[in-house]
Amino acid sequence: MNKGSGQVNNTATVHIVGAGPGDPELLTLKAIKALNQADVVVYDRLVSPEILDLIGPGATRIFVGKAASNHHLPQEDINDLLVRLASNNHTVVRLKGGDPFIFGRGSEEAEYLTRHGISFTVVPGVTAASGISAALGIPLTHRGLATGVRFVTGHAQAGQPLDMDWKSLADEQTTLVFYMGLSNLPEISKRLMAEGLPENTPAAAIAKGTTRDQRQCIGTLAELPDLVIELEIPSPVLLVIGRVVGLADVLNWQGVVYEGAASNGEFESEENVAVFSTIGG
Amino acid sequence: MNKGSGQVNNTATVHIVGAGPGDPELLTLKAIKALNQADVVVYDRLVSPEILDLIGPGATRIFVGKAASNHHLPQEDINDLLVRLASNNHTVVRLKGGDPFIFGRGSEEAEYLTRHGISFTVVPGVTAASGISAALGIPLTHRGLATGVRFVTGHAQAGQPLDMDWKSLADEQTTLVFYMGLSNLPEISKRLMAEGLPENTPAAAIAKGTTRDQRQCIGTLAELPDLVIELEIPSPVLLVIGRVVGLADVLNWQGVVYEGAASNGEFESEENVAVFSTIGG
Repeated sequence: MNKGSGQVNNTATVHIVGAGPGDPELLTLKAIKALNQADVVVYDRLVSPEILDLIGPGATRIFVGKAASNHHLPQEDINDLLVRLASNNHTVVRLKGGDPFIFGRGSEEAEYLTRHGISFTVVPGVTAASGISAALGIPLTHRGLATGVRFVTGHAQAGQPLDMDWKSLADEQTTLVFYMGLSNLPEISKRLMAEGLPENTPAAAIAKGTTRDQRQCIGTLAELPDLVIELEIPSPVLLVIGRVVGLADVLNWQGVVYEGAASNGEFESEENVAVFSTIGG
Repeated sequence: MNKGSGQVNNTATVHIVGAGPGDPELLTLKAIKALNQADVVVYDRLVSPEILDLIGPGATRIFVGKAASNHHLPQEDINDLLVRLASNNHTVVRLKGGDPFIFGRGSEEAEYLTRHGISFTVVPGVTAASGISAALGIPLTHRGLATGVRFVTGHAQAGQPLDMDWKSLADEQTTLVFYMGLSNLPEISKRLMAEGLPENTPAAAIAKGTTRDQRQCIGTLAELPDLVIELEIPSPVLLVIGRVVGLADVLNWQGVVYEGAASNGEFESEENVAVFSTIGG
């Protein structure tokens, strides 16, 4: 690689594309268009097999994912690969699960491409929080239950503890979504409760959301860490924490079956009792 | 309306569909499918004209939007309309800008439908924050600049002041996105600065993002309220506040032209100077 060489090729372009949460029907028309034009598709483990099936036989696929236990992705190598492919006049799609600008490191790749004279485009995607929220009937905001929503990452750099403002996160009015939060769930649960989030706040853990392998469980904030271990919910997992999760019972339009202790939809939180009472009659 | 009558019709269904931020190519395949099946499409003012053009001539369109100055949407009337249409065996699409479960009140409609025995589905959409972030080259998270992102609503119930935990919001590590924040921008700016968010934090205001009428301006948190007035940026507006906005200058892949004072991309924040210095090469 001739790093820092400025303009390599004016026509070389990398399309940084969000693949959405997993269901291929949640791809946007723009994403499909980009895939249809691709000579090469560079993807990682967050892109579902169903979506990979849409890539035409004429396009080369390059897998750059890593096992879940290895938190340190070789980002520099991926960056170099994208520059090299584009410099060879390939039309490159960099396909990422969800949305490339929400925990996707898409902007780091874009920055690197710009520095190396490669043009790029960005195709947004349905982020995992939206897709999974729709699939389960858990709204991210809801009048009287959540005035806003917060997306944070539940995994830290390798070997580092989670560095978060737990006091600020422990807010009953705000839905919390942790991306990749499985391994740190015990700490997340403990810290939020320590800062005052009620231990009976409903919380959901969802693996492979919107795909045929989707699994989900619901419990209280206090019990969820044990529940995911007991049920062997696999990583990566999306965590949704907040009073809106209590609506999963009544807005479960797909009839999703929840595993484990709270599958009967009962929560002890007074807020949730109130919510349920507005429904029945 | 015979409210609370229980099961009206087992086959009646309302599809609550996210239309994305405005660009019709940001519709999902699932949304297109729902629109193609619709007998009736019920939509409001946040759905772009380009997307309405996709609705076939065989489907009835019902506009239920309200002028921007009227904050009180007649939600009960919309709810009743959806039940009535579905009860008459129409296949109904309730089309909403962005994602229906992020400030879309989609879950209120879903709750009402359930209570009246009408089944529903939810099709997630690219939320305005994602779509606009991609269009402008402003990532919502970026290593070293933002560890997470927060979506809040910038408008309050009619006549009410904004009721927010400003101290918690004023966090340099978190990107803030205010939906519908134009009229309260002076207060948002003042309160965030009062709680310690630096006045030179870069901030963007975007109207009609991803459509052909998109307009945008960037300034510091301190100057943005005057800038949007000076430039007559129209409502509704998405506000993005945080250090990631400083990347707009280098990741501006569409060559978007920013209006007003900060159109030269200069910010005084040290963080941003640092970011820009990593780019030049």
